[in-house]
Amino acid sequence: MIHVALVGSTGLVGESLIRVLLGHPGVRLAFLGSEHAAGQPIDKVLPSLRNSIGLTCQQTTVERLIECADATILAGKSPEAMAFVPPLLQAGRKVIDIGGEFRLQSATLYEQWYPEKHLCPEMLPRAVYGLPEMNRNRIRSADLVANPGCYATAAILGLMPLLEAGALTQAPIPVDAFSGLSGAGRTATGSNLFVQCNENVRGYKLGQHRHTPEIEEALARAAGRPQRVIFLPHVVPLDRGIYCTSFVETLRPMSTGDVLALLRARYEHEPFVRIVDDAAQIDLLSVRDTNFCDLSALADPSSTRVMVFSALDNMVKGAAGQAVQNLNLMFGLEERLGLVNRRMI
Amino acid sequence: MIHVALVGSTGLVGESLIRVLLGHPGVRLAFLGSEHAAGQPIDKVLPSLRNSIGLTCQQTTVERLIECADATILAGKSPEAMAFVPPLLQAGRKVIDIGGEFRLQSATLYEQWYPEKHLCPEMLPRAVYGLPEMNRNRIRSADLVANPGCYATAAILGLMPLLEAGALTQAPIPVDAFSGLSGAGRTATGSNLFVQCNENVRGYKLGQHRHTPEIEEALARAAGRPQRVIFLPHVVPLDRGIYCTSFVETLRPMSTGDVLALLRARYEHEPFVRIVDDAAQIDLLSVRDTNFCDLSALADPSSTRVMVFSALDNMVKGAAGQAVQNLNLMFGLEERLGLVNRRMI
Amino acid sequence: MIHVALVGSTGLVGESLIRVLLGHPGVRLAFLGSEHAAGQPIDKVLPSLRNSIGLTCQQTTVERLIECADATILAGKSPEAMAFVPPLLQAGRKVIDIGGEFRLQSATLYEQWYPEKHLCPEMLPRAVYGLPEMNRNRIRSADLVANPGCYATAAILGLMPLLEAGALTQAPIPVDAFSGLSGAGRTATGSNLFVQCNENVRGYKLGQHRHTPEIEEALARAAGRPQRVIFLPHVVPLDRGIYCTSFVETLRPMSTGDVLALLRARYEHEPFVRIVDDAAQIDLLSVRDTNFCDLSALADPSSTRVMVFSALDNMVKGAAGQAVQNLNLMFGLEERLGLVNRRMI
Amino acid sequence: MIHVALVGSTGLVGESLIRVLLGHPGVRLAFLGSEHAAGQPIDKVLPSLRNSIGLTCQQTTVERLIECADATILAGKSPEAMAFVPPLLQAGRKVIDIGGEFRLQSATLYEQWYPEKHLCPEMLPRAVYGLPEMNRNRIRSADLVANPGCYATAAILGLMPLLEAGALTQAPIPVDAFSGLSGAGRTATGSNLFVQCNENVRGYKLGQHRHTPEIEEALARAAGRPQRVIFLPHVVPLDRGIYCTSFVETLRPMSTGDVLALLRARYEHEPFVRIVDDAAQIDLLSVRDTNFCDLSALADPSSTRVMVFSALDNMVKGAAGQAVQNLNLMFGLEERLGLVNRRMI
Repeated sequence: MIHVALVGSTGLVGESLIRVLLGHPGVRLAFLGSEHAAGQPIDKVLPSLRNSIGLTCQQTTVERLIECADATILAGKSPEAMAFVPPLLQAGRKVIDIGGEFRLQSATLYEQWYPEKHLCPEMLPRAVYGLPEMNRNRIRSADLVANPGCYATAAILGLMPLLEAGALTQAPIPVDAFSGLSGAGRTATGSNLFVQCNENVRGYKLGQHRHTPEIEEALARAAGRPQRVIFLPHVVPLDRGIYCTSFVETLRPMSTGDVLALLRARYEHEPFVRIVDDAAQIDLLSVRDTNFCDLSALADPSSTRVMVFSALDNMVKGAAGQAVQNLNLMFGLEERLGLVNRRMI
Repeated sequence: MIHVALVGSTGLVGESLIRVLLGHPGVRLAFLGSEHAAGQPIDKVLPSLRNSIGLTCQQTTVERLIECADATILAGKSPEAMAFVPPLLQAGRKVIDIGGEFRLQSATLYEQWYPEKHLCPEMLPRAVYGLPEMNRNRIRSADLVANPGCYATAAILGLMPLLEAGALTQAPIPVDAFSGLSGAGRTATGSNLFVQCNENVRGYKLGQHRHTPEIEEALARAAGRPQRVIFLPHVVPLDRGIYCTSFVETLRPMSTGDVLALLRARYEHEPFVRIVDDAAQIDLLSVRDTNFCDLSALADPSSTRVMVFSALDNMVKGAAGQAVQNLNLMFGLEERLGLVNRRMI
Repeated sequence: MIHVALVGSTGLVGESLIRVLLGHPGVRLAFLGSEHAAGQPIDKVLPSLRNSIGLTCQQTTVERLIECADATILAGKSPEAMAFVPPLLQAGRKVIDIGGEFRLQSATLYEQWYPEKHLCPEMLPRAVYGLPEMNRNRIRSADLVANPGCYATAAILGLMPLLEAGALTQAPIPVDAFSGLSGAGRTATGSNLFVQCNENVRGYKLGQHRHTPEIEEALARAAGRPQRVIFLPHVVPLDRGIYCTSFVETLRPMSTGDVLALLRARYEHEPFVRIVDDAAQIDLLSVRDTNFCDLSALADPSSTRVMVFSALDNMVKGAAGQAVQNLNLMFGLEERLGLVNRRMI
Repeated sequence: MIHVALVGSTGLVGESLIRVLLGHPGVRLAFLGSEHAAGQPIDKVLPSLRNSIGLTCQQTTVERLIECADATILAGKSPEAMAFVPPLLQAGRKVIDIGGEFRLQSATLYEQWYPEKHLCPEMLPRAVYGLPEMNRNRIRSADLVANPGCYATAAILGLMPLLEAGALTQAPIPVDAFSGLSGAGRTATGSNLFVQCNENVRGYKLGQHRHTPEIEEALARAAGRPQRVIFLPHVVPLDRGIYCTSFVETLRPMSTGDVLALLRARYEHEPFVRIVDDAAQIDLLSVRDTNFCDLSALADPSSTRVMVFSALDNMVKGAAGQAVQNLNLMFGLEERLGLVNRRMI
C-alpha cells in the first residue's frame, strides 16, 4: 500500500484525485491538506463524497507529509507549495506536482510566464516531465515528477511522433484548442460565470498562454531542435474535455494514411493513447471520464498541410489520471492500476 | 419622445433594458448611470452593443436625472438608489424601480426580508405594484411603480384568477419554480459558476426566498384574505426563463377545462398572457425573448388538486419587458409599444 | 465469477451496464446481445469503449443465454425480450429486467399503461420489484427481478418511510420531477433533439407517465392501503440526473427535523441512501456517476405540508447501478461490490 | 409595403425569417408555404408565435407566389423549390434562395457537392451571391439572390480583405469553424440528439463540407486567382453562433495592427461588420441575435502566420438577417431596416 498525501484537496483537481485514489487498489489516502478547509471533514466541503470517505482536511506541514506519506501530490493553486519539495525529497519521499512549477527546465523561463518567483530552482534538473509516453523510464526512477498541463498533453501527444520522425518543416505550429470550464477551476475569475460561458465560445490568452513554453520544450526534445507553437486556447460551454487541432506542414507530401500509420507505430504499446482512423470520430464524449487521449489526422491531398486532432478529459489524462499513471510508474505498479474500467455512465 | 434615464446600466437587467429601449419608437435613452463604469462608453462595458449606441456611462446624481429624463428606471442592485425617489417624484418625474424596494406595502416587512433599512418608507403608499394584469389603471396614473419580481410575476399570474374567483381553499400553496442563471446576475456569488450550475439542478432559499411576501401580498389582494405560499426556487442550467408549477386545492371539484376557461376569461384581453390548452406545451423556448407569460393547468380527476403551470422569460416579462410595459402605461402609450415582434431567433 | 449476458447492449443503459460490469471484480461479461449491431465489435458501436473490451455483439437466442450466462440482464427496448424469461428461469438462470415488463403485479394494469401485450403474465407473481431498500431479502432469493424505473426509485425512496410510519393523509401526492435527457435514450423521438431541449424546460406525459402505477403499487405496499400520486415529469437541459420533489400532507404537524429523523432511522443501514439535513444541498452534481440517492425534507412550519426532495443519477441508481446492486444480492455478493469509489471526475 | 412569400416556413430558418419580417416596417408577410403543415395555423406549428401572427400555412404553387408576393424567400430544405425560380423571375418577381442551389457558378460543381441534379442551370448566370459586403451593387439590381451559407459568410468576411489586398501566399487556408446546433436544423439526423451533442465537441465532414467550394469561389473572386481552403466544421453544445479561425500566411511580415487596419479600412462603411482590436473579445454572446459579424486578427510576431477570427449568429447574419439585408437592397430600402435594435435580451 502506497500512502499518498494530497495538498490542495478541495479544488476540482483535488476532488478528481480523491475519487481516483479511493478506487485505486494499491493506494491509501493518508492526508488531505487544505488551507481553507482545515478541520472540516472533506465530505462537508465536497458533498458528493458523503458516505465515501472519512478523512478530515488538515493544515499542511512538511513534517506531517514526511511522517504519513510515501508520496505527496501537490494539487493546489498556491505556489508556496513548491517549498515542500526540497525537504520531502531530502527525506526520501516522492512528489508529483500538478501545477506548472517544475515543468519548465529553467527558472528564468518559469518567471517569464508565471507571476511568482521560483522558490527552489535547484530542484528543476531533478524534475522529470511526467508524460509517460515520452519519459516512461525516467519517470520510473524519478522522485520529482512535473505532471503535464492538460492542453500540453493533448498537443504534445499529437505532434511528438511527427517531430520525432523528422517529418515536419520548422514553421511555427498553430494549435487551436477548445476546453470545458473545469480547466478554469472553482474560483470565480470574472469570466467563468455560467451566464458568461453558456451559449458562448471565446478565446483567451491567445498566443500568450503559459502552456506555450511547456509545449515548445517538449516538442523541441522530440524534434531535436527548437519548435515554436502558436497556442490558441478557447472555452466552450461544457464541463470537461479538451479538443485540439494542430496544423503542421510536412517536408514531403503525406497521405492521411501515412500520418495515421506513423501515429499508430509510435503508440502501438501505449495503454492510454488510441488512434482513430476517421478524424470525425474524435470527440469529447469518447474520452470523458477516461484516461485515454484519442488521436487522428487528416492530410490535405493537394498540399503538405496536415491536421492532427487530439481529445482527452482535462481532469483525467489532463490532470488526476495522468498523475496516478505517474504514481504507478514511480512505485513500480502496473501502469493502468486504478485507471481502467471505472466510468459508470 | 419620452426621455428615459437608466440607473444601473451594466448589469444583465440594465443591458436588457438598453436593448428594449433602443428599439422602442417612443423613447429616447437620455442617461446611463453606472457606479463602476462612469466615464466609459457603454459599448466598452457591454461589447454586444458596439455599433448600436453612442452613450457613455455617468455617475448618477438626482439633479442630472431631473434635468435629462421624464422617467428614471432603477435597475441596479444598490439599495441606495431608493434615495433618489423622493426628489424625483417631488420634481414631477416618474420612477420605475426594478428592485424590491417598493414592492411590499410595509417597511417593516421589507426589513424582515431584505438586508438593508428602507430609506423612504413614506413613499410606500404612493408606489403601485407594477403588474399590469392586476393594476393597469393604477399604473396609468402612478408616478412610482414597483416592477414585480420575475418569480412573483410567474406565480401571481397563474394563481390570481383562481383566487379572485374564490375557487381555492386557504391551504398554503406550494410554488415549485425553476429559473435560468440570468436571474442571478453577473456578480460571482459562490454558486453561479459554470462548473457549479452546468449539469446540475439545485434548490436555494427553499421556503425563504424574498419573493415569498411579494407573492403573498399580491395573492391576498386577489383573494380578499391572507394567502400563504411555500415558495421553492431552483436553478437549472440555462440562461433565461422561469418554469413554475403551483399546487392548489379547489373548494369544489374542477376539471382541467374548468380551470382553463377561468384563466381564459380572466386574461381574454391581456396582450401578454397566453393560455395554452395542453400543459405539456408550456415550455421556456416558447416564451424566450418575448414579453409573454404562458399559462396552463391540469386538474387531478380524482381529487380537488389542481396544478397551474406558468412560464416566462425572466429578463423580459420578469424584468425589462414588464418595466417597458409599465412605462408605456404611465405615459399613455400603446401598452405593447416596443415589445412585440422583436425576437430575431 | 458470475457470467453475465446483456440483451440490448448498445443503448445508453446498455453502455452504462457494460462500464459498471467491466469494473466489477466478481463478474465476467459473457455475452452482448444486439439486434442492430450483431456481428460488430461493441467498441465500433460505442467508440468510448475502444481499448477497454474485446467482445462482439451477437444475435440473442435463449439457447445462447442459457449456455453462456448465469444471469441475463434485459436492457433493451424491445418488449419481445420478455419471451426469454420463462425458458431462462426454467433452465435455472436468473434474470434482471431493466424494462417495465415485470414491475407491475397485474398484466391488465401493464397493458393499460404499456402499448404491447404481456407475453408471460404467468411470470409476474415470481418477479420481485428490485428496490433493495424495500425488498432486500426477497431479492436475495429471487430469480426474476424487475429493476425499478428511474423516476420511481427517486419518488419511492423519498416517500416510503413516511407511508410505512403511517404519517400521511390519503390525499394524492404530487411528485414534481425533473430529468436529464439520458432518460430519453438514443433514439430520436421528435422531442429529444439538442435544439428542442437546450435552454428549455418542459413537462411531458403530465399525470399520464407509466411510472405512475409503479410508484403507486410500491407506495401502497409501504402504506398498507392504496396511495395515489400525481406524477409530473419534465426534461431539463442536462445529461444525467433526476431531481424530484414530493408534496405530502402529514396527519399531525411535523417539523423538518422530525421528518429527517424518520428518514434517517429508516435508511440508517442503507449503503446507497444519504440523508442531507439542508434541502438546498440536494443537487444532481452530488449524485452524478454514483449509485447514491440523496434525500432531504422541508416542513412548512404553519401547516401540515411537507416537501420531500430526492436526487439520483438515472443511469446509475436509476438503472445500471441498481441492476448491479440487485445482481450482487441475487448471487450473495457484497451489495456494494463494483459500485463504490468508481467515479473519476 | 413589400409583399413577401416564404417557402419552407416551419424550419428553424423559416421561423427566424418570420420573426425578422414581422418586425420589419417595410414588409408584409403575404404567404407561408409548408409541405407538411399546409392548412395549419403557423402558430400551432411554432407555438412561440402564438398571439403574434394570424397566418395559416399553405401548399406552395408558383401561381400563388406570383399572385401574392413581390418577393419569395426559399427557406426550406427541398431542392424542388428551385423549379419555382424560372417562372417567378419570368413574371417579374424577385427571389432570395437561402439554400445552396444558386451559390455556385456552375451546375457541374453543384452536382459534385450536392446530392440532387440542378433543375435550372440556366438561371445560374443570373444569380448574384448575396454577400452585401462583396456584391452590394449587383444585389441592388438582382432579381435572384443566393443567400450565402452561414460558415461561408464568417470565413469570407474574415479573409476577403487580405486577399483583395494581395497580402497572402497561395497556400491553402485552413478554416477551423465551430457552430451551434441550430445549423443542423430541426430534423433528427442521427447526430443532433441532445445526448450526443451536450458536453461534446466533434468535427464532421472535415475537409468535405459543401461550403468549401462556396468559400473558394468567393475568395477567388477577391484574390483574382484560385484559392483553396481546408474547411473544418465542428459542432459545439449551444444553440446559435459560429466561431471561426482562419490560418493564413502573408507574403510579407504583418503585425496584428497592420491586419486590423486593413480589415478596418475595408469595412469602414459596413453597417454589419465590426472590427475588434482584441481577438480575445471575439465571442458568440456579442453577436447573438444580431446581424453583426465581428472580426479580429492576431499576427505571430516571429513568422508570417496570421490568424483571422470571425463570429456571427448563424440564424441572423448567417441566414435570416442576411436575407433581409439582401431584400432591403433589392427593393431600394435602407439596408438596416428591420435589422437593428431588436434583440431583447
